Amino acid sequence: MDRARLTDLLRSVHRGETAVEDALRTLSALPYADLGFARVDTHRALRCGFPEVVFCQGKTPEQVRAISARLLEGASRLLATRADPAAFEAVRAAAPDAVYHESARAVTVVRDTRPPEGLVAVLCAGTADVPVAEEARVTAEAIGAATLPVYDCGVAGLHRLLGETERIGRANAVIVVAGMEGALASVVGGMVDRPVIAVPTSVGYGAAFGGLAPLLTMLNTCAAGVTVVNIDNGFGAGFAAARINRLLVEAGGGKA
Amino acid sequence: MDRARLTDLLRSVHRGETAVEDALRTLSALPYADLGFARVDTHRALRCGFPEVVFCQGKTPEQVRAISARLLEGASRLLATRADPAAFEAVRAAAPDAVYHESARAVTVVRDTRPPEGLVAVLCAGTADVPVAEEARVTAEAIGAATLPVYDCGVAGLHRLLGETERIGRANAVIVVAGMEGALASVVGGMVDRPVIAVPTSVGYGAAFGGLAPLLTMLNTCAAGVTVVNIDNGFGAGFAAARINRLLVEAGGGKA
Amino acid sequence: MDRARLTDLLRSVHRGETAVEDALRTLSALPYADLGFARVDTHRALRCGFPEVVFCQGKTPEQVRAISARLLEGASRLLATRADPAAFEAVRAAAPDAVYHESARAVTVVRDTRPPEGLVAVLCAGTADVPVAEEARVTAEAIGAATLPVYDCGVAGLHRLLGETERIGRANAVIVVAGMEGALASVVGGMVDRPVIAVPTSVGYGAAFGGLAPLLTMLNTCAAGVTVVNIDNGFGAGFAAARINRLLVEAGGGKA
Amino acid sequence: MDRARLTDLLRSVHRGETAVEDALRTLSALPYADLGFARVDTHRALRCGFPEVVFCQGKTPEQVRAISARLLEGASRLLATRADPAAFEAVRAAAPDAVYHESARAVTVVRDTRPPEGLVAVLCAGTADVPVAEEARVTAEAIGAATLPVYDCGVAGLHRLLGETERIGRANAVIVVAGMEGALASVVGGMVDRPVIAVPTSVGYGAAFGGLAPLLTMLNTCAAGVTVVNIDNGFGAGFAAARINRLLVEAGGGKA
Amino acid sequence: MDRARLTDLLRSVHRGETAVEDALRTLSALPYADLGFARVDTHRALRCGFPEVVFCQGKTPEQVRAISARLLEGASRLLATRADPAAFEAVRAAAPDAVYHESARAVTVVRDTRPPEGLVAVLCAGTADVPVAEEARVTAEAIGAATLPVYDCGVAGLHRLLGETERIGRANAVIVVAGMEGALASVVGGMVDRPVIAVPTSVGYGAAFGGLAPLLTMLNTCAAGVTVVNIDNGFGAGFAAARINRLLVEAGGGKA
Amino acid sequence: MDRARLTDLLRSVHRGETAVEDALRTLSALPYADLGFARVDTHRALRCGFPEVVFCQGKTPEQVRAISARLLEGASRLLATRADPAAFEAVRAAAPDAVYHESARAVTVVRDTRPPEGLVAVLCAGTADVPVAEEARVTAEAIGAATLPVYDCGVAGLHRLLGETERIGRANAVIVVAGMEGALASVVGGMVDRPVIAVPTSVGYGAAFGGLAPLLTMLNTCAAGVTVVNIDNGFGAGFAAARINRLLVEAGGGKA
Amino acid sequence: MDRARLTDLLRSVHRGETAVEDALRTLSALPYADLGFARVDTHRALRCGFPEVVFCQGKTPEQVRAISARLLEGASRLLATRADPAAFEAVRAAAPDAVYHESARAVTVVRDTRPPEGLVAVLCAGTADVPVAEEARVTAEAIGAATLPVYDCGVAGLHRLLGETERIGRANAVIVVAGMEGALASVVGGMVDRPVIAVPTSVGYGAAFGGLAPLLTMLNTCAAGVTVVNIDNGFGAGFAAARINRLLVEAGGGKA
Amino acid sequence: MDRARLTDLLRSVHRGETAVEDALRTLSALPYADLGFARVDTHRALRCGFPEVVFCQGKTPEQVRAISARLLEGASRLLATRADPAAFEAVRAAAPDAVYHESARAVTVVRDTRPPEGLVAVLCAGTADVPVAEEARVTAEAIGAATLPVYDCGVAGLHRLLGETERIGRANAVIVVAGMEGALASVVGGMVDRPVIAVPTSVGYGAAFGGLAPLLTMLNTCAAGVTVVNIDNGFGAGFAAARINRLLVEAGGGKA
Repeated sequence: MDRARLTDLLRSVHRGETAVEDALRTLSALPYADLGFARVDTHRALRCGFPEVVFCQGKTPEQVRAISARLLEGASRLLATRADPAAFEAVRAAAPDAVYHESARAVTVVRDTRPPEGLVAVLCAGTADVPVAEEARVTAEAIGAATLPVYDCGVAGLHRLLGETERIGRANAVIVVAGMEGALASVVGGMVDRPVIAVPTSVGYGAAFGGLAPLLTMLNTCAAGVTVVNIDNGFGAGFAAARINRLLVEAGGGKA
Repeated sequence: MDRARLTDLLRSVHRGETAVEDALRTLSALPYADLGFARVDTHRALRCGFPEVVFCQGKTPEQVRAISARLLEGASRLLATRADPAAFEAVRAAAPDAVYHESARAVTVVRDTRPPEGLVAVLCAGTADVPVAEEARVTAEAIGAATLPVYDCGVAGLHRLLGETERIGRANAVIVVAGMEGALASVVGGMVDRPVIAVPTSVGYGAAFGGLAPLLTMLNTCAAGVTVVNIDNGFGAGFAAARINRLLVEAGGGKA
Repeated sequence: MDRARLTDLLRSVHRGETAVEDALRTLSALPYADLGFARVDTHRALRCGFPEVVFCQGKTPEQVRAISARLLEGASRLLATRADPAAFEAVRAAAPDAVYHESARAVTVVRDTRPPEGLVAVLCAGTADVPVAEEARVTAEAIGAATLPVYDCGVAGLHRLLGETERIGRANAVIVVAGMEGALASVVGGMVDRPVIAVPTSVGYGAAFGGLAPLLTMLNTCAAGVTVVNIDNGFGAGFAAARINRLLVEAGGGKA
Repeated sequence: MDRARLTDLLRSVHRGETAVEDALRTLSALPYADLGFARVDTHRALRCGFPEVVFCQGKTPEQVRAISARLLEGASRLLATRADPAAFEAVRAAAPDAVYHESARAVTVVRDTRPPEGLVAVLCAGTADVPVAEEARVTAEAIGAATLPVYDCGVAGLHRLLGETERIGRANAVIVVAGMEGALASVVGGMVDRPVIAVPTSVGYGAAFGGLAPLLTMLNTCAAGVTVVNIDNGFGAGFAAARINRLLVEAGGGKA
Repeated sequence: MDRARLTDLLRSVHRGETAVEDALRTLSALPYADLGFARVDTHRALRCGFPEVVFCQGKTPEQVRAISARLLEGASRLLATRADPAAFEAVRAAAPDAVYHESARAVTVVRDTRPPEGLVAVLCAGTADVPVAEEARVTAEAIGAATLPVYDCGVAGLHRLLGETERIGRANAVIVVAGMEGALASVVGGMVDRPVIAVPTSVGYGAAFGGLAPLLTMLNTCAAGVTVVNIDNGFGAGFAAARINRLLVEAGGGKA
Repeated sequence: MDRARLTDLLRSVHRGETAVEDALRTLSALPYADLGFARVDTHRALRCGFPEVVFCQGKTPEQVRAISARLLEGASRLLATRADPAAFEAVRAAAPDAVYHESARAVTVVRDTRPPEGLVAVLCAGTADVPVAEEARVTAEAIGAATLPVYDCGVAGLHRLLGETERIGRANAVIVVAGMEGALASVVGGMVDRPVIAVPTSVGYGAAFGGLAPLLTMLNTCAAGVTVVNIDNGFGAGFAAARINRLLVEAGGGKA
Repeated sequence: MDRARLTDLLRSVHRGETAVEDALRTLSALPYADLGFARVDTHRALRCGFPEVVFCQGKTPEQVRAISARLLEGASRLLATRADPAAFEAVRAAAPDAVYHESARAVTVVRDTRPPEGLVAVLCAGTADVPVAEEARVTAEAIGAATLPVYDCGVAGLHRLLGETERIGRANAVIVVAGMEGALASVVGGMVDRPVIAVPTSVGYGAAFGGLAPLLTMLNTCAAGVTVVNIDNGFGAGFAAARINRLLVEAGGGKA
Repeated sequence: MDRARLTDLLRSVHRGETAVEDALRTLSALPYADLGFARVDTHRALRCGFPEVVFCQGKTPEQVRAISARLLEGASRLLATRADPAAFEAVRAAAPDAVYHESARAVTVVRDTRPPEGLVAVLCAGTADVPVAEEARVTAEAIGAATLPVYDCGVAGLHRLLGETERIGRANAVIVVAGMEGALASVVGGMVDRPVIAVPTSVGYGAAFGGLAPLLTMLNTCAAGVTVVNIDNGFGAGFAAARINRLLVEAGGGKA
């Protein structure tokens, strides 16, 4: 409820058109649906620009199904992440038109015809980083962005990346996904003048410590303008990039 | 050197207008000034949208002076960060019009009349976080952004923040600076639909472990769309936010 | 054995009513039952207000059964935590009236008719945190507290919490269970004037580091009056909260 | 603003006694004083039971003075922690009757005649832990609790503690302060049926890792009912203990 | 080869009784048996007082069998640790009289009639710590010590320990095994004047971090005279304790 | 493309022998094969002295097969590491003459008759370290080095190592593989004047923390001239050692 | 108070020779001196074999003086560790015959003529480790042991150690002090059949992490029979070694 | 003493030319000079190719002087590292011709006329990394290598590095020094076919954690052939590189 609607409500009370009891009820109405085990945030699209996303890890299939069904009552799109096949089946029980993105472990439902807009580039350093990159890409597309995947271009063979600089430089936001030492984010950050969002992955072994190594690399990058999300958090990077992309498109620019 | 200029050069060689030796020299020309102890990146503004920034920590005053002088030969603005008073004097020796931002520990030189554009909101949780927030704010302004500081609005008294939601929601990018437990980033991330860049600070003691606690908090935020920079890295956040702000302004929008 | 009983015993020796040998035996009697693999602390209810609790993890079913049987000889209630179905069967072998709380992984035996007293509120941030919250709730109830569960009210959608503030503020103690970044504890701690006990959970991934992230968040909270227990230690929080609740009820207050 | 006052306001608007503009202003009024560098939370006493406390670390003396002065406008007591002598002078500039607790590094102003109530026991393991214990004790007293200090009773000489068990067992809450290995909290937690709040300290060297060792010890305690605060956070423990103490006194009990 | 034997050899060369070639061969003879994948240290009993012990983890059953067979050629006792049932079968293939200690996951072969000597006390805090304690006890017995197990006497019920003080104080060395917070080592270290060897275990969860918590506790103990071995290293503690025990017995004392 | 070839190309353009369009194409030609999921670096042998190596972990068998097939189009040797049996089958589908090194978990294809050259010594401390040592040895051999394995010579029985000093001292490079405390690297580093490359392994338990302990040991070695690779990274050590070995052989020396 | 004295007391009460009140007083008498800031453990010599040691770090000179004075009332020897010159002066104010061991940062008072007994060997790896080694040596001597220092014999030049093996092997206990990678403990542990107590030091830089590296090395040692104390804890090692030494001397052996 | 000299000695004993007593003395002669606080390893040049280096940190000036004087008795060159001005004066007291390398904090004495040989390239990422790079360079030169410094060529402006590839590729070994995220090592490792030795530095702040970030980056590098030394260990890298350089020069190659 924003300031404008608050003013309207108060005026309506003043004019006697709305009873005090009704105003009270409205002012304390809960903008979420209480399912018992979950409080589905039905107003998040208004507040944050996209409906609540279903993070499947740690939820039972029945919980996934119920939340998905409730969210789709008020939205034309749905995104479910960290979804194993059982979670996919649960979403499909609520939405027969759900699509499973296996590598990304994500489920999407798209019931509008809005075309993808702008451009988000998604780079990854190695083949093993592809699932996290795909989670980022599917997320950005679910929110409405067109995407450009550029995979397996790690710094040990930099020429693989240098040939793509121009295409990458046209994107509204650039996601860089890398495990092991994660140096790709710094190299890309030094090459383009676009917002760069770095995603460390848990790919690696030994002193990679489950993604700690590339996380620290990316946080300490000497390239200005690079920001970082959690290890393996392709969703977070895709969401943040798509948000920037959408603002640019709405501003009348951002056409790659 | 982009593809267009490469084509021109090759054509010129083909027409005999450029000697092979000259083409060779051009192709291997160094886009930086070698000062012995430093290679000043004179092309960074072309590549990344802002001249190289002088990170003063670990440099001698003489090095700071020489680098500043060289950068100002080809740029109308200069930013020097982590600058103690001696570093400020060093910049001032190269640029008498340098300005010192004491709380931010930053030095700026501004020799153009470009007005600030767009809007970057800079929030911080506590009074002790102000220096990092100021580094972010001064950086964003140096790059051309208008800024909105909202300081000391930590989550232990949330109402201090709730009253500012509307103003913050108009910014092109929102920077959230917080030490101790760093929960502010999650709260803000759940309230606005703008890109949120979180900066953990080393404010705190004990199990804050020099900023590790808020860093982990911010990386694990349940609010989508939040990205993170290094502990105390106000500069990085200011740079990233100003880059988004500039893209939005250039796209014709982003007027707060 | 407290000072009063020691005085009585010495007086009895003095009067010749108790032989020296008997006094010696009494003074060195072991207030525990030695089962070989375990020394069951039969006096803990006197000393700490509730019988020893059976922590099933790392114990064989036979050990669980024997300890449960021994404890129930002298107590009307039993609580077994970290109980998988095999552990539940083991308790049931000793107590056919044992009840299994599946989500909480806890077993209770209640053989008195004492009604629940006072009120302990149990909040959790996400659906995946429910098992730990349930462990806290079941523990508090086993010790005699009435409980108020408020689940899935994380800070990314703060309005879900704000609507419950009044109910929560009536509790004698408030337990806040949260994984990922754990910011909920700070937000609740800034809203109520009740003792707040925070429980970090291992829910999350990547830089959550198995619960380290919310643990550090909660320890560094800027909200005064919040104390913390171990990661996933719903039992500890439930026990501590119920102890405060009981003291308040005994003091004549604490009626929610 | 609670529900009752909201109802009154809406009724007043309905009756035309309050103009819409005035209601709007009231509804968005800020319950804090904006000092520029700080937003002093003037309503915290209502919400959390004690005025905002001044955490001096990281604040300039002038900031400390201004915040102290503003808080004392609406409160009869003030507590400032982590106060070095300069911070004390700053508080004294605002309140000539301020008292400095040197060992605790705390400043108090007490302008009412409310006698100390209930009892909070404060134990510490070694002489080097006394400053943190004193911070806890001074905090608890500032909030209104009577306190019982029992210092230097570490587990290497347990008999020093055993002799005090009875006195400690009469307190409404027990604070245990310990550095090095921090085992004292477990021992006390096994002896009393009172809420035990453990404070690890940074006393120690080597593998104490600045208090990490006792922090982990206390979090992993096998004694139920023990909760933990941040390393060296005497204030947090004192605040939490005094809050429990106050509830018990208000409930009509808690007289030691 | 000690100094005496070196002198003899040189004298023999001098007298012409030993050829230079033979002396060379002797001086470079290998005091180990090369099995290809392993160099079995056949002289360790001379050097360190007990034959090399077979650490089964990471070895194939065939490797365990071959090493066991080779060691038993020159020794009357064998100890194999971290032995799962397959490893036990492997030892039994080499020594049909091998005995499996299931809880300790250890295998012993004893082919002499040397009676146990002296006394090593083995304490553990909880039932879940028993396997590590048993590894320590079986190791100490394999080397020749009599042992006194005192299990499940953690600090949350200290009276269970206090009753055993006298018996424990008669041992030549005391092993204290504890997980979770590991406080037992400090308490025992403050009670007896015997060498105390502390073994942290990986029993626990959350902030126990796989045994890091009790390890740090024990390293930081305020009780002088306590030394520590690796997490879950019952073998190391048993070996060190038995070595002290043997020295004491050989010195003519150490009879419990 | 080196400077010489660039000069030739420009001269050819100048003479009209190469069209501008062709030169452009050549200058931007991609020295890698894009397989969609992978960009196979076909020029690495020119640049780094050995074709790209297939790191199988995290790749599907089909990906392993396709990359192997593509690499073998332009190379006479192939090395695939971290290869489980399924990965071996995948390589074999592309190269029926592939050989599986089970302990090393590596696959090699050798289609030339180049004899092994020089000498690389590979030491390991314990039997459980053999797989990592074998990965190093197989890698070094794949690149062309002769190797000398010296296994199970840890510092607890130093004489096993001392007897091999002379042979080890003849190698062009020495690899030392050790888990647990990793002390072997320091001992070897103090004995030979050859480049020593240390490989920590994840062998061990408890405070070995997955190889962190030997990693730190090796990084802190007091023996000059020792360098370190990642935990369990036998490949990296074998590659680095073989590179030194090849340079020495090419220089006309390095014959052991 | 042992069992015998308890029996006597009870009998005396029985015979009427001791009044109940007196028995009560005796039974609760405090075996420590309460100085306000410290509870001096006056019975520790009886219980643990040596009077309480004064750990000066974190104590004021006045506290050091008072504790020293109190301890010397009932003991003929005093040891104060972590003593800077001010602490030494404080002890000297209580005991003019106090001696300062500068390198060890320890103070001793010896007022009996008991000659040193047995033998404790103290090894250290480098010159920078000498202060910790000296703390161990001075401690062991204060408790009555003869000591053999063998300094600067790190593993990078093992021959420096090998020449001393025989002398070291005659000691009743061997202390090994080492920083950096701490490998010396493993080498010594593999050479002698005596109890080896390892002390990691904070000597080193970078990945030594303040002594963490040698601490982990020593905990993971492959040499059986090595136990470990805290980083820089020369006192703890000296105390433990001297305790073993004393037991051996009392047993009639242990003469080096 | 090598095998040849041992054979000679034995033959001499056999021929009666050397007395048994003399042979014994020779065989047990100590190849080090015992200065009391230090055992100067006078044979290290024979064994490891360069005299023992004086690590000044933690040594008193007098110790530095004495060790330097003793080493120069048998060597024509001396290297002292981590030398502050006082340490330099100490070396100069022993060797008036000592030279101080201020940035490198190193002292050298060179008394022979051996010209520098081969080539070691030393790269560093930023100006603040220069001191560590200089320590590496001075060390390599002290051991006899010619060096090529290439400073301030971090990955945020990769073109600064690309222009130097050819020169770097001619070196016998390449040292890469970098702090912050340390990505330079991976980039260089992917460009050259020379041994690459990476040195992380403590340059940076926040999540650089004193050099941990670049250390992990370098250990996890995806570029094969890169090995790593301790944080800030320019000496170790220079020593290892110079050793490889010397072997190559001795082999008849390695002329850059």
